[in-house]
Amino acid sequence: MEYKFNNLIMDFYELTMGQGFFNKNIHNNIAYFDLFFRKVPDNGSFVIANGIKKCAKYLEQFHLSQDDIKYLKSLNLFSSEYLNYLSKIKFTGDVWAVEDGTIVFPNEPVMTIKAPLIEAQLVETSLLLFFNRASLITTKANRIVQSAKGKTIMEFGTRRAHGETSAVDGALDAYIAGAVGTACTETGKQYGIKILGTMAHSFVQSFDSEYEAFKAYAESFPDNCTLLVDTYNTLKSGMVNAIKVYNDILKPMGKKLAGIRIDSGDLAYLSKQARQMLDNAGLVDTKIIVSNSLDEYLISSLLKQNAPIDSFGVGENMITAKSNPVFGGVYKLVAIEKGGEIIPKIKLSNNVEKMTNPHFKNIYRLLDKNGKIIADLLTIYNENKPSGKITLFHPQNNWTQKTIENYKVRNLRLKIIENGKIIHKFKTVEETRKYVQEELATLWEEVLRLENPHTYVVNLSDKLFEIKNKLINSYKNI
Amino acid sequence: MEYKFNNLIMDFYELTMGQGFFNKNIHNNIAYFDLFFRKVPDNGSFVIANGIKKCAKYLEQFHLSQDDIKYLKSLNLFSSEYLNYLSKIKFTGDVWAVEDGTIVFPNEPVMTIKAPLIEAQLVETSLLLFFNRASLITTKANRIVQSAKGKTIMEFGTRRAHGETSAVDGALDAYIAGAVGTACTETGKQYGIKILGTMAHSFVQSFDSEYEAFKAYAESFPDNCTLLVDTYNTLKSGMVNAIKVYNDILKPMGKKLAGIRIDSGDLAYLSKQARQMLDNAGLVDTKIIVSNSLDEYLISSLLKQNAPIDSFGVGENMITAKSNPVFGGVYKLVAIEKGGEIIPKIKLSNNVEKMTNPHFKNIYRLLDKNGKIIADLLTIYNENKPSGKITLFHPQNNWTQKTIENYKVRNLRLKIIENGKIIHKFKTVEETRKYVQEELATLWEEVLRLENPHTYVVNLSDKLFEIKNKLINSYKNI
Repeated sequence: MEYKFNNLIMDFYELTMGQGFFNKNIHNNIAYFDLFFRKVPDNGSFVIANGIKKCAKYLEQFHLSQDDIKYLKSLNLFSSEYLNYLSKIKFTGDVWAVEDGTIVFPNEPVMTIKAPLIEAQLVETSLLLFFNRASLITTKANRIVQSAKGKTIMEFGTRRAHGETSAVDGALDAYIAGAVGTACTETGKQYGIKILGTMAHSFVQSFDSEYEAFKAYAESFPDNCTLLVDTYNTLKSGMVNAIKVYNDILKPMGKKLAGIRIDSGDLAYLSKQARQMLDNAGLVDTKIIVSNSLDEYLISSLLKQNAPIDSFGVGENMITAKSNPVFGGVYKLVAIEKGGEIIPKIKLSNNVEKMTNPHFKNIYRLLDKNGKIIADLLTIYNENKPSGKITLFHPQNNWTQKTIENYKVRNLRLKIIENGKIIHKFKTVEETRKYVQEELATLWEEVLRLENPHTYVVNLSDKLFEIKNKLINSYKNI
Repeated sequence: MEYKFNNLIMDFYELTMGQGFFNKNIHNNIAYFDLFFRKVPDNGSFVIANGIKKCAKYLEQFHLSQDDIKYLKSLNLFSSEYLNYLSKIKFTGDVWAVEDGTIVFPNEPVMTIKAPLIEAQLVETSLLLFFNRASLITTKANRIVQSAKGKTIMEFGTRRAHGETSAVDGALDAYIAGAVGTACTETGKQYGIKILGTMAHSFVQSFDSEYEAFKAYAESFPDNCTLLVDTYNTLKSGMVNAIKVYNDILKPMGKKLAGIRIDSGDLAYLSKQARQMLDNAGLVDTKIIVSNSLDEYLISSLLKQNAPIDSFGVGENMITAKSNPVFGGVYKLVAIEKGGEIIPKIKLSNNVEKMTNPHFKNIYRLLDKNGKIIADLLTIYNENKPSGKITLFHPQNNWTQKTIENYKVRNLRLKIIENGKIIHKFKTVEETRKYVQEELATLWEEVLRLENPHTYVVNLSDKLFEIKNKLINSYKNI
């Protein structure tokens, strides 16, 4: 099923600016826009880029429907020539981007759009919407997966998501980030990923007793019977009935009790007691699954307490990225072509870190002999690929220097769209999930740390640094 | 355009439980589920209920498509009898709910579903998804609107929303909560609400100078010209050029400069300086609009500093409810019919506040002679409407008592669905927006306070209290 984009998901100023460009006949000037972010959520050290494929699909189909034009006309604000132009608009530009699943750092252009000014401007909001949401949730979910140290993470957040896209695609992001599956059935259907789920408290309440509820479930799913044990009292009732149902129903059928789930109370204490009860009953293979407002910190804490938990169901804190629910990707004009020449552009700010890196650029990733990242280097589009001895310096604190000589170079971005058409074969969901793990292997352990991780800075080539300074100085005397 | 629901947006356990109910032939037993929440976000004192209309539309159309059934069959987990049953399933129950825009408090059932057990169970996740998201954003947006003390709030968050639904419907929620409009064009198209927007920094950068950019914009929109003045330097460049363009272009046409927008820097200082420059130039009617990561606290602070701001553009902090992005609505079984009798059900918990209020209930709102809320009272469905002298006591701390005699009574909920069909005429967007203001007028000022507000508790009738205690005690000896 093809996704149907709502092409009017755009900030209205894009349409008013478009009228301004159109009136001055500069709407077809070729412009370069960078999509990047300035800060990693949760004080982390890296972001897992995601949403790029969706951006590409959006750009390829971009158009405004007759209904859209009719609506815009009804506002009595736009000229009929402009509306006529909009009724035929398509995206005809070129796009360079990292692949979904790539580790990226602040201030590097994960995507660059080269297109007629008006086209590049009209797609701003949707590109940001897709990239921001997907990268936010993928990055957050990976933090949670990392915290589980090899135990499994299941995505359980649908009901607390911020709407349908957040629920369905957020579950996909969690899977790509390393979760084993999701409770969201629609995600399973749309993307073919594993779906998971057993019972709610209402199931237990719907029968005359907990024992009868467990019995009914075991009879229905003898091959995969996980029982929720905390409706009345986890240890005195739930665990007792679970073991009894195993002995009465599953054992005689030659089946195992797959798991028990605890959804409230002190999960460290209860899981230890439950493990002992299971082991005493000979149920050494029965998994213990826990849930209840978990996040990376609670999971770390449970594991530090040696809680014998096999699987964590994570809901609201992952699907909303609760601790840091805003991902600040931005979309900035960096160059305009004039008479065949690419003129770099800058946006100044009172805050140094809010200044943009001007010009049409490349990102080179420098790796050591073990394949670990040394640094990323931004260069002007027509500079040579880095080679030989180079000196890296911090873009703001340029007294911090580092000279490197032996390194491998990777061009981090690919051309994914040419003349408005996708020219890149995107990875499948499974391939992207695998790629994320390969990418994580390029990071030092100190970078993966949840708290106070080592951070990378993105370096500018000498030439780019010089151009940036020249532009800054040209505005100094305003 | 009719909204197309994805009916498989459900937690998978609903489908496995369904198989369990079906096998035991209890799937058609009539069950009662309450939808309620336990905590107001941001330590606030009330929630503005929203999303009810969407829930009703979802229930009325609920079904599983052939594609859905095909997918479920592919899992090799469900019986063919059950899949055949699911292929014909519809929602046939009754629903009582508050109207969108109603002020509601923790632990009162904003919606009650009475339906065959399996139908009521399968719709759980989507109902929560719709109610949680909409109520979260409406409640947050209203906090921001309240903080502006009559100055206008504009919704600018599309790019930072959690996906398309979050963006488009979140903008609608902000409008319902009192914002004057949104930058999201699609929301304008779908719901007919006011859309707003002028220019981004890229517009200014696209011209050879800021002056030329402003001139181009003024010529395109002489009747509604708002200029973004902070691309290079707000006071030394942006304001100077804005005033110059007014004098050169707008004034000779007999037009005004509608507004200037500041998007960075010290908004208190810059707005005061800008106001002075505008006033000195005779532009006393020109509005000052500010944006940049605003929320209710920053807005309060700016107004306390007497910043002469007319309008606030609020983005990421409103559309994601950043300070508290999880709304914890839950859906709990409260009764089951057996032999024509309604049997109350309870879910216990180690945490007293997590116990549910059992039984099929009514909510009565008691108001004083000025129309201010005294308290809400939960009763059993067949109790009489409260009248005469009544003693209210706190549901957990029952030594806190209060006796009232003169009050008006309002039945807070309506029957909105009967036998699966919507029987209620829902309010329009404008009517709901107006209703929110009427509802807010029923609150004391102390309840509206942003920090440490006075809170209401929801009281139980004597009869309900007694039934709840009896149920709790029946599980004491487990």
